[in-house]
Amino acid sequence: MRVGGRHYRTIQRASDAGAIDIIDQTRLPHRFEILRLETLEQTATAIRDMQVRGAPLIGATAAYGVCLALREDASDDALRRACDTLGATRPTGINLLWALKRMKTALSALEGEERVRRAYELADEIADEDVSICEAIGRHGMAIIQNIHEGRGDGGTVNILTHCNAGWLATVDWGTALAPVYKAHDAGIPVHVWVDETRPRNQGASLTAWELLSHGVDHTVIVDNAGGHLMQTGKVDMVVTGTDRTTAGGGVFNKIGTYLKALAAHDNEIPFYVGLPGPTIDWEVGDDATGVPIEERPSKEVTEISGRDPDGSISSVRLTPDGSGAANPAFDFTPARLVTGLITERGVCEASGEGLLSLYPERRAMDGDVK
Amino acid sequence: MRVGGRHYRTIQRASDAGAIDIIDQTRLPHRFEILRLETLEQTATAIRDMQVRGAPLIGATAAYGVCLALREDASDDALRRACDTLGATRPTGINLLWALKRMKTALSALEGEERVRRAYELADEIADEDVSICEAIGRHGMAIIQNIHEGRGDGGTVNILTHCNAGWLATVDWGTALAPVYKAHDAGIPVHVWVDETRPRNQGASLTAWELLSHGVDHTVIVDNAGGHLMQTGKVDMVVTGTDRTTAGGGVFNKIGTYLKALAAHDNEIPFYVGLPGPTIDWEVGDDATGVPIEERPSKEVTEISGRDPDGSISSVRLTPDGSGAANPAFDFTPARLVTGLITERGVCEASGEGLLSLYPERRAMDGDVK
Repeated sequence: MRVGGRHYRTIQRASDAGAIDIIDQTRLPHRFEILRLETLEQTATAIRDMQVRGAPLIGATAAYGVCLALREDASDDALRRACDTLGATRPTGINLLWALKRMKTALSALEGEERVRRAYELADEIADEDVSICEAIGRHGMAIIQNIHEGRGDGGTVNILTHCNAGWLATVDWGTALAPVYKAHDAGIPVHVWVDETRPRNQGASLTAWELLSHGVDHTVIVDNAGGHLMQTGKVDMVVTGTDRTTAGGGVFNKIGTYLKALAAHDNEIPFYVGLPGPTIDWEVGDDATGVPIEERPSKEVTEISGRDPDGSISSVRLTPDGSGAANPAFDFTPARLVTGLITERGVCEASGEGLLSLYPERRAMDGDVK
Repeated sequence: MRVGGRHYRTIQRASDAGAIDIIDQTRLPHRFEILRLETLEQTATAIRDMQVRGAPLIGATAAYGVCLALREDASDDALRRACDTLGATRPTGINLLWALKRMKTALSALEGEERVRRAYELADEIADEDVSICEAIGRHGMAIIQNIHEGRGDGGTVNILTHCNAGWLATVDWGTALAPVYKAHDAGIPVHVWVDETRPRNQGASLTAWELLSHGVDHTVIVDNAGGHLMQTGKVDMVVTGTDRTTAGGGVFNKIGTYLKALAAHDNEIPFYVGLPGPTIDWEVGDDATGVPIEERPSKEVTEISGRDPDGSISSVRLTPDGSGAANPAFDFTPARLVTGLITERGVCEASGEGLLSLYPERRAMDGDVK
């Protein structure tokens, strides 16, 4: 997508040999800063501290992290260590493990410079594939928005609520949940986005709002509490979110609070869609999702908040009394029964095992040998 | 309740003639400051800017606001102007209108010094009644907590989730939703409270946490997004909130986001109770609650947030990009079907018209002449 007239991806090869440039997402919306990653450790930190975030982008970043490790040491040990280190950064999203497995499998048979060369090639492939996948999600999802628009018959704006950031900043480009919105906007369909601020890290208020503003898409920021009321009063036509891990049964692990919006959409008969790239599907987890780890993040993300102070600096203020503790689970699970449909790069399907298998029939053949 | 060993009410007569002392709730949890109100205008500002908030406390404050107006000018015009000014400060809560109507009705037949004397007497009565009502809510609600505690059989802690602040700071003393929690704690029943921070104004993180901390009740602050996940994973035994306006059909208008927690409680078969003083019941609004105004507050409450900066000062930081707008509806409606029971000063009833009439039978006789 474009920032100030120039095209960016969220992650790209730097001009100098082998380093990787990312957009430091902890500085947005107040600063647009490119951060250069040169080592495995810097990459692991960038993922853990959420300088990059969003399941698809985490996957691509991890792939480049393996490259950065291997350019220092191309041994089997170094490959294993890189995958272990990166695999431990964030526990809930599945693309991370998917990308690392893909790197490890392909690189194990190679060695030395050939291994390093192939690592970069493969990381580039993962990044490019993500762009193609998201673009395709955008096309398929746009058809849903267009249908709502045409179904209304009044030519009116389609009001779309989204949670967290599943826009281009969460991927390499385009986004998952927001790709259909960008496609619809570019096609001239009038859209307006209700942006959940998405406490505690406010990815909606800081990243989604910034993205939509940069692209010229009409939007309004709301607190996470407001969506139910907006749905009750007819101000939401559709909800669309991303997912960090989709179960084989069609349920979704996504940013904490997604489940509450899905309940409200269901209660008000508003369609609730999830945009997802194939690699977020965890074919090993079916209807019983209790085994998936839910990341517990630092309580400081709840008790303090950062923003731009009157001087223009980015600073933190404390919200809670000293002495009050805080809990900070980062994801929740939205069961398939609350999801109207899954928007994938291969089309839109029902949120169910059968629905997913209709789009990924090769998984049916692999049944029992998914791993 | 006690602050630093001394007993306070949220509002009380000042030592000098006629003025009123309130706790400035916009400074908590970082500062405990008493603010003196001497005029109608100061009182209206205190309500509008939420130096006092909570439907019961707003009612009591408005009653004293009438006193402050009358001690300057005891004319009929001044009485009418005071009621109009105070009645327009916050639109959703019903106690405000109830308290003003009570003042106006009682004072219309009086004049001069007698009117002023009776105004203070009546405002004191309203405040004292609120304390008795909340204490009774506490007793009735404690029985529910005790039942859950005993029903578990393991002697374990009862985990209670609450939204916003319906503690003693929202009333004159004791609170509505939190009165049962204080009573249970004082009776030795182990309780732990999940405190929704309650964006945008964070009454949970700042006021409820501070109250519970001051009283020694175990609690954990969470973002508003987290409650659904905690319910899904068995970490919540009961939800209890307050209400700003209860319909005659048993539905509740309460702080924005309450509806989302009620949906999640219902989906997970967790009891959802509402603590309410009789005066929050709007007997004129039945099942169709669409006519009740939902206050839209300034967007700045969403785009900026205040807290304690590293220097110890209270300051604001901006959260959203310049150019992104925000909407800020302050309340939502939770239909009776999602409410397990209503805890009133007269006991606990089903959330329905019949349930309420069983506790307030005098309203049945007044049917058709409620106004």
